[in-house]
Amino acid sequence: MSAALGSTGPRVAPARAAPLCRRALLLPAGRTRVVVRAEARRPDYIPNRIDDPNYVRIFDTTLRDGEQSPGATLTSKEKLDIARGLARLGVDIIEAGFPVASPDDFEAVRTIAMEVGNDVQPDGYVPVICGLSRTKFADLERAWDAVRHAKRPRVHTFIATSDIHMKYKLRMTPDEVVENAVAAVRHLRSLGCNDIEFSPEDAGRSDPQFLYRILGEVIKAGATTLNIPDTTGWNLPHEFGGLIAAIRKNTPGAENVIISTHCQNDLGLSTANSLAGAMAGARQIECTINGIGERAGNASLEEVVMAISLRGKDQMNGLYTGIRPVHIYPMSKMVSDYSGMIVQPHKAIVGANAFAHESGIHQDGMLKNRETYEIMTPESIGLPRQEQDRGIVLGKHSGRNALSSRLRSLGYELSTSELDDVFKRFKALADKKKGITDEDILALMSDELHQPKVIWELLDLQVVCGTMGMPTATVQMQGPDGIARIGVGVGTGPVDAAYKAIDSLVRVEAELVDYSVSSVTQGIEALAHTRVMIRPAGKMSDQGYSEHAALGTVQRQFSGSGANEDIVVASARAYISALNKMIGWMSVAQKVAPRTRSSSLAAGAAGVSMAGVSVASGASMDEAPGALTASAKQA
Amino acid sequence: MSAALGSTGPRVAPARAAPLCRRALLLPAGRTRVVVRAEARRPDYIPNRIDDPNYVRIFDTTLRDGEQSPGATLTSKEKLDIARGLARLGVDIIEAGFPVASPDDFEAVRTIAMEVGNDVQPDGYVPVICGLSRTKFADLERAWDAVRHAKRPRVHTFIATSDIHMKYKLRMTPDEVVENAVAAVRHLRSLGCNDIEFSPEDAGRSDPQFLYRILGEVIKAGATTLNIPDTTGWNLPHEFGGLIAAIRKNTPGAENVIISTHCQNDLGLSTANSLAGAMAGARQIECTINGIGERAGNASLEEVVMAISLRGKDQMNGLYTGIRPVHIYPMSKMVSDYSGMIVQPHKAIVGANAFAHESGIHQDGMLKNRETYEIMTPESIGLPRQEQDRGIVLGKHSGRNALSSRLRSLGYELSTSELDDVFKRFKALADKKKGITDEDILALMSDELHQPKVIWELLDLQVVCGTMGMPTATVQMQGPDGIARIGVGVGTGPVDAAYKAIDSLVRVEAELVDYSVSSVTQGIEALAHTRVMIRPAGKMSDQGYSEHAALGTVQRQFSGSGANEDIVVASARAYISALNKMIGWMSVAQKVAPRTRSSSLAAGAAGVSMAGVSVASGASMDEAPGALTASAKQA
Repeated sequence: MSAALGSTGPRVAPARAAPLCRRALLLPAGRTRVVVRAEARRPDYIPNRIDDPNYVRIFDTTLRDGEQSPGATLTSKEKLDIARGLARLGVDIIEAGFPVASPDDFEAVRTIAMEVGNDVQPDGYVPVICGLSRTKFADLERAWDAVRHAKRPRVHTFIATSDIHMKYKLRMTPDEVVENAVAAVRHLRSLGCNDIEFSPEDAGRSDPQFLYRILGEVIKAGATTLNIPDTTGWNLPHEFGGLIAAIRKNTPGAENVIISTHCQNDLGLSTANSLAGAMAGARQIECTINGIGERAGNASLEEVVMAISLRGKDQMNGLYTGIRPVHIYPMSKMVSDYSGMIVQPHKAIVGANAFAHESGIHQDGMLKNRETYEIMTPESIGLPRQEQDRGIVLGKHSGRNALSSRLRSLGYELSTSELDDVFKRFKALADKKKGITDEDILALMSDELHQPKVIWELLDLQVVCGTMGMPTATVQMQGPDGIARIGVGVGTGPVDAAYKAIDSLVRVEAELVDYSVSSVTQGIEALAHTRVMIRPAGKMSDQGYSEHAALGTVQRQFSGSGANEDIVVASARAYISALNKMIGWMSVAQKVAPRTRSSSLAAGAAGVSMAGVSVASGASMDEAPGALTASAKQA
Repeated sequence: MSAALGSTGPRVAPARAAPLCRRALLLPAGRTRVVVRAEARRPDYIPNRIDDPNYVRIFDTTLRDGEQSPGATLTSKEKLDIARGLARLGVDIIEAGFPVASPDDFEAVRTIAMEVGNDVQPDGYVPVICGLSRTKFADLERAWDAVRHAKRPRVHTFIATSDIHMKYKLRMTPDEVVENAVAAVRHLRSLGCNDIEFSPEDAGRSDPQFLYRILGEVIKAGATTLNIPDTTGWNLPHEFGGLIAAIRKNTPGAENVIISTHCQNDLGLSTANSLAGAMAGARQIECTINGIGERAGNASLEEVVMAISLRGKDQMNGLYTGIRPVHIYPMSKMVSDYSGMIVQPHKAIVGANAFAHESGIHQDGMLKNRETYEIMTPESIGLPRQEQDRGIVLGKHSGRNALSSRLRSLGYELSTSELDDVFKRFKALADKKKGITDEDILALMSDELHQPKVIWELLDLQVVCGTMGMPTATVQMQGPDGIARIGVGVGTGPVDAAYKAIDSLVRVEAELVDYSVSSVTQGIEALAHTRVMIRPAGKMSDQGYSEHAALGTVQRQFSGSGANEDIVVASARAYISALNKMIGWMSVAQKVAPRTRSSSLAAGAAGVSMAGVSVASGASMDEAPGALTASAKQA
């Protein structure tokens, strides 16, 4: 059909997408370990080389770079779930965290290394588990300790190499930087680590001559992967591709290691830059699910993978990956839900609008539309067509098996007791709503199973609000001591009132950073899915700090989610979930055990006593003298 | 600092961003007509040529391609606001709509052509106003009628040229397609239109030889701009750049017209593809604010413009645009708010996290951070640093002048009576909330001033809800006849109950497609900002259709927004605003005038009579026999 125009000219082949999509379409959605590209056997894993020159490793850093973005703090349980999902997806390397950040981070990486890092598949696949580390020896030892139980452990160490970073951030001379890098790699070797990745931070703005020098030295010291980060998202694709080519050409020993890309998205170019890097010879691409990360985030795994999957053969000299795209959509949902980083409707591949909607288009246009405007099918990334069409997947007569099977196809393997819990809530929902979609099931899952350890629990809530009065909420909660207490709050709205009532019982000082009700196009019916983000405040504002790989010491933010038919109940559940996450992370559960109060109460809120429970109240607008209410704001 | 590596090698110049940013930083935020790049005088406008070879025209299609994406339907007032904002931003061409879509669309384009298209600035700048049209003569005449009153009118006509589109969508032979295209351009010339853009739809998957032929023919017929759309987002940057270069080289007469790019974002490559096109010689880039559009959207104006602004001189042989970046952020907020297409926190340039947050980072890290991780300042795109730091811009003692001045700097010019309305609500909010941020002001604006024509108005609302009972809402509303009525509803949650109560009075059958409470990182305090999307349903499901440029006949969706301290009140206001928009758009206000009811009421909802008002009720779960409640679902 098209004329050849040389290697960089356009080659048009619309039919290319079809074989992949059709194959994926025929796969039972619930089966894992599917090899979508039968021709694409994953080469054996050897740290510093790949035996197939066209194979590109996918290095996922959702749990490290993604998790350290503002508010995306995940619980250990959530991290483990995501790591398991990444293994199902088939990523080659999972960067599981920055172990020195906090004891919680260390434990999470170690658990993932021991569990996911040892779950070898019949075809021999098991993901490499990687931990990030600065060049300090104590950091390196901590990182190695966290990953070494994995079958394939890797430590990723880094130091900045751009003039601006060396001068203002590190306050080191270039010679000192080289010394540090070499010493770090040698130290890792001495610990027994044979899979070592090194990154010159801000490589995209570093002097290429200096890069060749430091990279050559770390290769001599024993590094096996050299990652080239465009840390500030400054590069254009041709420029970044040129940098990768120049490094391969000018760095002594580069032919004996893997070159990797790590592209931030500040100008919206991270996917294009990653692909340009691969076309220039990089054989590892660092990316995150949904492209989450600091500032404008990283290259999106789904965009990079689908671009290579659809165009690798034609336009990238045969490049391919080991990813199983049919798990992309469930992973996107899981990461968006756990991290609180929402995906805009027009996000490529995984946005709610990414595939053409048929509803609202006349039959004629609908048929035309599929064939003419879609370059991949939704099924190929694990998004069932009927969901997109707002189809009902389960109803009130669906049994436990149907639910369990649907959950499995969405990527969730549940224990019997976990399934019991979800099934109970599923039935309650099915009584109120005619058809249950995948969105509803995912919302139930996130509310029910992936809450942090329960410290405080909501028993009951009652609210009166509107344009005419003072919104008032009453909550009954059970604390860590097992005692049920009632709290009352008055606020500027029903959610504010409920949060004040909760604050009157929990007595942790938290600031509400973000509040949202998730927008799910064509998905919301009976269930409001609420998410909040909080951080320690007031008397606790000096708590909750941890080490951030690039920025130094930062205060963590904690997200929580809740799903319920009643938006105020969902909001209360989300807030309590975030409080529990924060209390658990800070290991201060003991210090914040509830006390009953007899101090004066603010105007507008009544302190009452009921048989068997103690009652506290939250003040409106301004804090009453002596009141211990948190500074959470209303929504 | 860096070694030259040839034209495609890396050239590292981190200091490049500074001059532009510092200059923008010093500009008073409220002043319009600011020329950010003093060196960048905009060349005089001549349709088929640009006298400066480095100048790239920015063609904004937010109002056409963006507006036709699911749910993004805008009112005429909103379109005019956006068009005015695009002129402040300095876009060269505003594609104002698809006039044949509906009478409402025609009127909006005509109004923009007459008002914005004649507002000539002292430096001679006035945007070209463009209307889209298929090749049918009736369409072309309608489009010309809509734009011809502008000082610089343009008609953009298109027909598909890929094999798959010609065969399955058009059912035409290539010869017929060429004939149609040529006849369309000739017809436009005969109408007196001298600024004619032609697009071969799905060019990215078309046979290049056929493209050269059809493009050569339309040039001969009189086209002045040739737009090359990668309609399905199929192309890689080097491939799309190659296509543009090949078209320039092989199309007879290409040197006498402007070549343009139009890149969809299905693989996340639209910005990179647009830049690759410009580097290959395209001198017009089509894009939208926030990258909104069908499926995964279009190239983002802000990404394209900032990439050219920061890297054009170094990496793109001196390319530049006429855009004033300091208006980017206010426009992003306006478009996101009006269209309902939210922006994810990690969206490049305009996302809530796009600039490094200082809060939560120790002072030490904060200082390091600015210098080392930001390639542009937030001020350079019109985002005040203090807002990013959650700074308070106004308080309860701020007067009308302070509010008016802040609004002007956010891009809003209000009449005295409009300012009165906003100021009243501003004072009410300031009484409840200690500091008012730009986010709050924007939320007030969207709620107060940019509502569709009021047909139904909420007077009062009262709700009782919680875990323990049946959520019940009472509303008092005033209809088009000026009579106040009370409605009662019971639902599965407070929002559902309120919507049922509203339905019992308004009696329009609408389906709730989407419900969300906007997530504004570090912005939400006293105000919940709710947005809903509805479409005609039930007995009205055959209404609300219009012509879509690519997809044929589609049903419109209507969004509405509401802001209030009480989330249930905000939700009710949003729903009523969407209903008003839908009723107004369909011009069926007469047909849906309220009737009082005496029919039987559903169980759980009471029908009561009060002096002077009539009372209706909305049923829960299932429709009661004879009840006329809409099928809007709860949130």
